[in-house]
Amino acid sequence: MIKAVDLRKAYRILNHGPTVLITSAHAGKQNVMAAAWNMPLDFDSPKIAIVIDKNTYTRELIEVSGNFAINVPCRGQAKMVLEVGSSSGRELLGKSPDNKFANFNIATFSASKVSAKLVKGCVAWLECKIISEQHIQNTYDLFLAEVVAAYADSRVFSDGHWHFEGHDDLRTIHHIAGGNFMVIGQAFKI
Amino acid sequence: MIKAVDLRKAYRILNHGPTVLITSAHAGKQNVMAAAWNMPLDFDSPKIAIVIDKNTYTRELIEVSGNFAINVPCRGQAKMVLEVGSSSGRELLGKSPDNKFANFNIATFSASKVSAKLVKGCVAWLECKIISEQHIQNTYDLFLAEVVAAYADSRVFSDGHWHFEGHDDLRTIHHIAGGNFMVIGQAFKI
Repeated sequence: MIKAVDLRKAYRILNHGPTVLITSAHAGKQNVMAAAWNMPLDFDSPKIAIVIDKNTYTRELIEVSGNFAINVPCRGQAKMVLEVGSSSGRELLGKSPDNKFANFNIATFSASKVSAKLVKGCVAWLECKIISEQHIQNTYDLFLAEVVAAYADSRVFSDGHWHFEGHDDLRTIHHIAGGNFMVIGQAFKI
Repeated sequence: MIKAVDLRKAYRILNHGPTVLITSAHAGKQNVMAAAWNMPLDFDSPKIAIVIDKNTYTRELIEVSGNFAINVPCRGQAKMVLEVGSSSGRELLGKSPDNKFANFNIATFSASKVSAKLVKGCVAWLECKIISEQHIQNTYDLFLAEVVAAYADSRVFSDGHWHFEGHDDLRTIHHIAGGNFMVIGQAFKI
């Protein structure tokens, strides 16, 4: 059910503002964190912007690997997203060889163009290579990246459009604060 | 029904990814455009990031005024949002002295700390002052701004949380492409 998304339409995966998971990997270490602060930055070539705090273990991994993946989780994964967002991969390192993935029972599969793994059960994925902009990375924790591959679960995203009808458990989730989320709702066309 | 929002919780207005209207004003000229590419950038002091194409009339106005306002429109305003997003304020300048506002019958009220007007009927507003970062403005059309005042319609946002139940017409809207939107849906807590 996972199909490649036309890169010129990859922005539509983030255009409606879902909360996402960022995965990262380098030299046998990997991590996953939650991130509500993300947005498309350009259509062609496709780029995105995302905030990654300098205290995170993810930040450490992506600054050496130069890449990460954005995974768009769904309603059925909300508890895991909150758990991932409330714990530090660095702190878990000593306790578990595979840190958050093992700790929260998160299954992954390989990306096509980056070292970061992709989280199973999500509804869309963007493989991203960092565009080095040291000043804004250091000053604002703001990262820009080129989207080098995009995939989506064709049950809910195809031909550049989301269609969640009949798949409530696959709807994207939008975090507000402290475990308070909203699911994306009804589609309409003007 | 419009109440000030604690600036430390202003990020929650954009955290779930709504499509917004950007208003701008300078020296008697003003404009309004639609923007799906926005996100919070910091909690305290509150900052946001937003993409504003260099071809827009809005860009011309905010680069001289140094400020803009983010207006969060609702389901009942979706047609206006699409109209505003599909037309250029610069092209309308010759036809109408007040360009898009007159053309689409958009009523406004004064902001407290910026020259940009706020759009009536929206459900939340952020008054923003640009943080000058010329390199990313010129290279990526990416603007960073400090939020200097925040307001929300207390029927749907209070104490730092959205509560749309019973107010379907006031739900935020999330654009995908070409007039295809989704409304924000049901709230849940993990």
